[in-house]
Amino acid sequence: MPTIPHIEQHFTGGATVRDIVIGMSDGLTVPFALAAGLSGAVAATSIVVTAGLAEIAAGSIAMGLGGYLAARSDAEHYASELERERLEVRDQAAAEADEVSQIFQTYGLSAAESQQVVLGLRERPEAWVQFMMRFELGLEAPDPRRALRSAVTIAGSYIAGGFIPLAPYMLLADAQMALYVSVVVTLFALVLFGYGKGRFTGAPPIRSALQTAVIGGLAAAAAFAIARAIS
Amino acid sequence: MPTIPHIEQHFTGGATVRDIVIGMSDGLTVPFALAAGLSGAVAATSIVVTAGLAEIAAGSIAMGLGGYLAARSDAEHYASELERERLEVRDQAAAEADEVSQIFQTYGLSAAESQQVVLGLRERPEAWVQFMMRFELGLEAPDPRRALRSAVTIAGSYIAGGFIPLAPYMLLADAQMALYVSVVVTLFALVLFGYGKGRFTGAPPIRSALQTAVIGGLAAAAAFAIARAIS
Repeated sequence: MPTIPHIEQHFTGGATVRDIVIGMSDGLTVPFALAAGLSGAVAATSIVVTAGLAEIAAGSIAMGLGGYLAARSDAEHYASELERERLEVRDQAAAEADEVSQIFQTYGLSAAESQQVVLGLRERPEAWVQFMMRFELGLEAPDPRRALRSAVTIAGSYIAGGFIPLAPYMLLADAQMALYVSVVVTLFALVLFGYGKGRFTGAPPIRSALQTAVIGGLAAAAAFAIARAIS
Repeated sequence: MPTIPHIEQHFTGGATVRDIVIGMSDGLTVPFALAAGLSGAVAATSIVVTAGLAEIAAGSIAMGLGGYLAARSDAEHYASELERERLEVRDQAAAEADEVSQIFQTYGLSAAESQQVVLGLRERPEAWVQFMMRFELGLEAPDPRRALRSAVTIAGSYIAGGFIPLAPYMLLADAQMALYVSVVVTLFALVLFGYGKGRFTGAPPIRSALQTAVIGGLAAAAAFAIARAIS
C-alpha cells in the first residue's frame, strides 16, 4: 500500500484540528448572535438561556451528525471507486494504460516518455489501482474511525464554544447587563480562538484573530438588529 | 480553514451543489429544532418567531462568512505553495527530481522506470510545477471567484431552508399548533431535500432522504427535550 508522504504536512493540524475549528467557530458565533439578538427583544435572561441551550443542542447535533455522514459518505465513495478501479485494471488494462499515458500528456509528456511508468504499473496491479485512485481520481484512503471521531469532535467543540457566550445570561438576571458581559467575553474568546486557528492552519494569526472576531460580531449585530426590529 | 482539495471533483454536482447542501441542511435543521425546542417552553409564537429570525440571521451570516474565508484561505494556500514550488523547481531542480522519483517509488516503480518522466518534466519547468502541485501536494487550482459565490450560495440556502420550519409560527398564533404543522412541513422538506441531495451527490436517494430526516428529527427532539426540561 503506497503512502502519501506530503499531504499531512500541509494541513499542519490535521483532521482533528479542522473538526474543532468547524465546531467551535459556529458554536461561538451562532449562540452568541442568537442570545444578543434575543436580549434586544426580551428583558428576562431565562428566555435567552432557554433559546440558547436549545440552539446549542440543535446546532451541535445537526453539525455533529452532518460531519458523521459526510465522513461516512467519503468512505463509501472511496470504497466504490476502489472496487471500480480494480475491475477496470483487471478487465480493461489497455484502456487504463492509455489513461495513465493521458495523465502525463496533460503535463506535456509524450507517450514515449511515460511508457516506462505505464509498463512498470502494469506489472504491479495493486499498486496500479492505488496510483489511479490518487492520480486519476484524486482520492485518498479515508481513516475508517474518522466518522465517529469527527462527529464527537465537532459536536463537543460546538457545545464548548456555545457555553462561552451563554454563561453571562445564566449567571446574571438582567438581559442588558448579560449582553454587555457576553459581548466582551465572546469577542475575547473569538480573538483567542482565531489566533490559535491561524497558528494551527498556517494563516497569519493576527489576521485570523481579527477575521474571526469580525464574523462573530457581524453575525451578532445582524441578529440583534433583526430581533429588535420585529419585537 | 483549509478544506481537503480533492473532494470537489467527485461531488458530481460540483461546488455550487455542495454549498447549497451545506447551507440548506443546517438551515432546515437548526431553526426547526430551535423553534420546536422553544415551543416546548413558551406559549406565544412571537418569541419563537423572534428567536427563529435571529437564528436565521446569525446562522446564515456565520456560515456564509465562514465559507467565504474558507475559500479565500484555500486560494491563498494554493498561491503560496505554488510560489514555493516554482522556487524549488528553479533553484533545487535535482532535489525536486528526486522527489518525483520518490513519488513513483511509493507505487513500487524503480528509479529507472520513472527516469523518462523525470527527464521529461525537467525539460518543461512550468508543467513540472503543476505536476508537483497536484502529485506531490495534492492541491488543485481554486477558482478565484469561488469565495464570494460560495458565501452567497451558503447564506441564501440557509435562509431559504430556515424559513420553511419557521413559516407556521409566523402564520399561526398558537405555538403548539404551529409546532405540529412545522414538524410535518419540515420533515417533508427534509425528505425532499435529502432525496435531491442523494440524486446530485450519487448517494442512494432513499437512504439519503431518510438520513436527512433523521438528523433533523434528532436535533429537534434534543432541543425540544432540553428547552422543556429547563422551562
